[in-house]
Amino acid sequence: MAIPKDARIGLSPEDIPKKWYNLAADLKDLQPMINPQTKEPVKPEELEAIFCKEIIRQEMSTERYIDIPEEVRDNYIYLNRPAPLQRAYRLEKYLKTPAKIYFKREDMSPLGSHKGNTALAQAYYNAEAGIRTLTTETGAGQWGTALAMVSNLFDIDSTVFMVRGSYNQKPHRKTLMHTYGAKVYASPSEYTDYGKKVLKEHPETSGSLGIAISEACELAAKSGGTTKYSLGSVMNHVMLHQTVIGLETMEQMKIGEIEPDYMVACCGGGSNFAGFTFPMMGERLKGKNECQFIGVESEAAPSMTHGEFKYDFGDTAGMTPMILMYTLGSQFIPSPVHAGGLRYHGMSPLVSAACNQGFVKPVAYGQDSTFEAGVIFSRTEGIVPAPESCHAIKGAIDIALECKEKNEEKTIVFCLSGHGYLDLYGYEQYLEGVMKDSSAKF
Amino acid sequence: MAIPKDARIGLSPEDIPKKWYNLAADLKDLQPMINPQTKEPVKPEELEAIFCKEIIRQEMSTERYIDIPEEVRDNYIYLNRPAPLQRAYRLEKYLKTPAKIYFKREDMSPLGSHKGNTALAQAYYNAEAGIRTLTTETGAGQWGTALAMVSNLFDIDSTVFMVRGSYNQKPHRKTLMHTYGAKVYASPSEYTDYGKKVLKEHPETSGSLGIAISEACELAAKSGGTTKYSLGSVMNHVMLHQTVIGLETMEQMKIGEIEPDYMVACCGGGSNFAGFTFPMMGERLKGKNECQFIGVESEAAPSMTHGEFKYDFGDTAGMTPMILMYTLGSQFIPSPVHAGGLRYHGMSPLVSAACNQGFVKPVAYGQDSTFEAGVIFSRTEGIVPAPESCHAIKGAIDIALECKEKNEEKTIVFCLSGHGYLDLYGYEQYLEGVMKDSSAKF
Repeated sequence: MAIPKDARIGLSPEDIPKKWYNLAADLKDLQPMINPQTKEPVKPEELEAIFCKEIIRQEMSTERYIDIPEEVRDNYIYLNRPAPLQRAYRLEKYLKTPAKIYFKREDMSPLGSHKGNTALAQAYYNAEAGIRTLTTETGAGQWGTALAMVSNLFDIDSTVFMVRGSYNQKPHRKTLMHTYGAKVYASPSEYTDYGKKVLKEHPETSGSLGIAISEACELAAKSGGTTKYSLGSVMNHVMLHQTVIGLETMEQMKIGEIEPDYMVACCGGGSNFAGFTFPMMGERLKGKNECQFIGVESEAAPSMTHGEFKYDFGDTAGMTPMILMYTLGSQFIPSPVHAGGLRYHGMSPLVSAACNQGFVKPVAYGQDSTFEAGVIFSRTEGIVPAPESCHAIKGAIDIALECKEKNEEKTIVFCLSGHGYLDLYGYEQYLEGVMKDSSAKF
Repeated sequence: MAIPKDARIGLSPEDIPKKWYNLAADLKDLQPMINPQTKEPVKPEELEAIFCKEIIRQEMSTERYIDIPEEVRDNYIYLNRPAPLQRAYRLEKYLKTPAKIYFKREDMSPLGSHKGNTALAQAYYNAEAGIRTLTTETGAGQWGTALAMVSNLFDIDSTVFMVRGSYNQKPHRKTLMHTYGAKVYASPSEYTDYGKKVLKEHPETSGSLGIAISEACELAAKSGGTTKYSLGSVMNHVMLHQTVIGLETMEQMKIGEIEPDYMVACCGGGSNFAGFTFPMMGERLKGKNECQFIGVESEAAPSMTHGEFKYDFGDTAGMTPMILMYTLGSQFIPSPVHAGGLRYHGMSPLVSAACNQGFVKPVAYGQDSTFEAGVIFSRTEGIVPAPESCHAIKGAIDIALECKEKNEEKTIVFCLSGHGYLDLYGYEQYLEGVMKDSSAKF
């Protein structure tokens, strides 16, 4: 088929936004994190053992716009920013839908996902604060990969605690982090007191994100200030840094005269969804548009569609502050679906509040149907999506098919959060018909 | 470090070249392919059993410029063309070299390599000629992946014969082709007479590129005209289609006022090197520049550095025409290095002729030193390169270090032919110090 020349809307480097957008300035009724010991709102200084001051300031800020430092903007080149907005002409044709479908290309980062957007900002602020090492946990490995790479850009070291089960099952993710120069430990590890304790009690454990978070936090807390902890989702400052995605997209929609009826993104901890939708949602809060924001969850961890809106811990061990969010309970262990980035019991407090106030429509899909969407997308648009991104695609396809039924020419814009080159085992299982639909029962 | 804003030179879609450049118009003393039976130059009609007419016309053309069809240009979007030219500031700083280093980003294709450039053109011409299926062989899998994806763009089918050893050892490449909808057979297969014959004689064989070529050609020849064969390197029309790389690069060098002293690319069958350097080499043949063209081979298959310039077969079984090229002998089996795309006994006849006439300086490196270069590049520039591309990087680094020694501010431009997401096992072996340096002994 002939592909129109406006199929892709690029931006020049000077069009990259100069400020991030903070939804906390416009969304009402936000509740603070609570210290579970004191039952009081967490004070900034209580977070200083693990985060640097500027990160804490951003975490608690209600300023509408926060300047993106010049050096962060310059280094976006290493994430291949700005990222194109592309029209899915061939997918539209395949679906025979009157709807227009666009997608934002976070798959073009050399890291393979959107995770570098906040890793870059966090590494910058920590380097500015004189920090020598960043440490974090990683499950599937996308976040650890991002932190490992960007640490090099600011000449700091990175130490990643990778959930032991993933460490053993996903050797390529570990190798990728090693290639970028990170120290990677299978968690629980002998490298921390908490890790040693867990190993002593459960020598055969395959670990968990909760344990890995605890090890990373211990490393930061006991470093005497040279090491800080870095988180890849959930918290407000992470959502803030990711808004570069949505701000670019809005600029591109202006250029292309695109007025979205739907913006669709996958939802695990919430960072891809928030980064993509919050700038447009901020406008909606001011009555400037009628766009609907669809958050697509995995049925393995459907916190917004099946969880409760309440205060809960961010981790399994109960070491974090209490957060008001949609949660399946901090003891909930999601099934081992391929979309590892969506396996989280809770949801970003900002995304949760927006959902609770009716500004997010959550949906959840099972594994099979999302891989089916991923295969359709691969064959029409030529890009093999990450399993997480397949959820957004499935969400977009379902709306497009509804448009077909109703013969409505709506505009759908979704976020392609990453590519699937390190997830081909999942595709193999799907294509060979041996994929287990590991959804939780609700 | 602060990254200057001119670190990346992009192009807009309308700047994509409108014509490919054909070195055969400017390079002297080119010799035709010979039919081994008749000892006469191959006639166009002898190739019609396996190639469509326009491909044959291009193969034999000595026109300087050949129009890129509008539909091919439109579909470059699916290869993420145009591709940026980027300055490797952080690599320069790491090497402490006065040299300037630039690289052309073929890694940004969703296929992970430059191979789509010719696959796209070949699929287009075959679809125009009414062909329903394209068939090919693949070793490491990059070429088969490219053909599998672009076939979808023109609504034709693809059948790939994958060397059985790779098929079993590289399940992810096979899965990638399946995801794109290709039929993939482990070669030798039960699907062709030749495959059956080989399997009967050698039931345990792990196959070879030569056998896979024979199976693909048989499928085309016996299809009654509905199926044609497609080749990913060596032949003139493949080099032609790849010149989109070098033509874009020249446009970008003009914008950036970059005058290269060296252009460096890896050399297997020659398509990446030819595509990148031929447009600039054409200008040199006219005395318009003094650029040196460095072809970097693997020590496992160093045809230009250690082979003979003579007529030889393109395949192992002796089924192709005889080609005048640098060759290690059509019976030569390269060691199983990770850079599968460089494991070829011969070299493109155009690249060979240019080398024989002194316009290409060939060098060869062992596996360890190229992976070392790849790790340096990953940590400085943030992109994990394909093992083939590591050869170009190693070549560029060595020149940059020579510049440092001599305190010369030269300009080096190399081609990053692809990314290494499906080659992380090689990185793991390198980082763990267990890589065998599988170079041939010369």
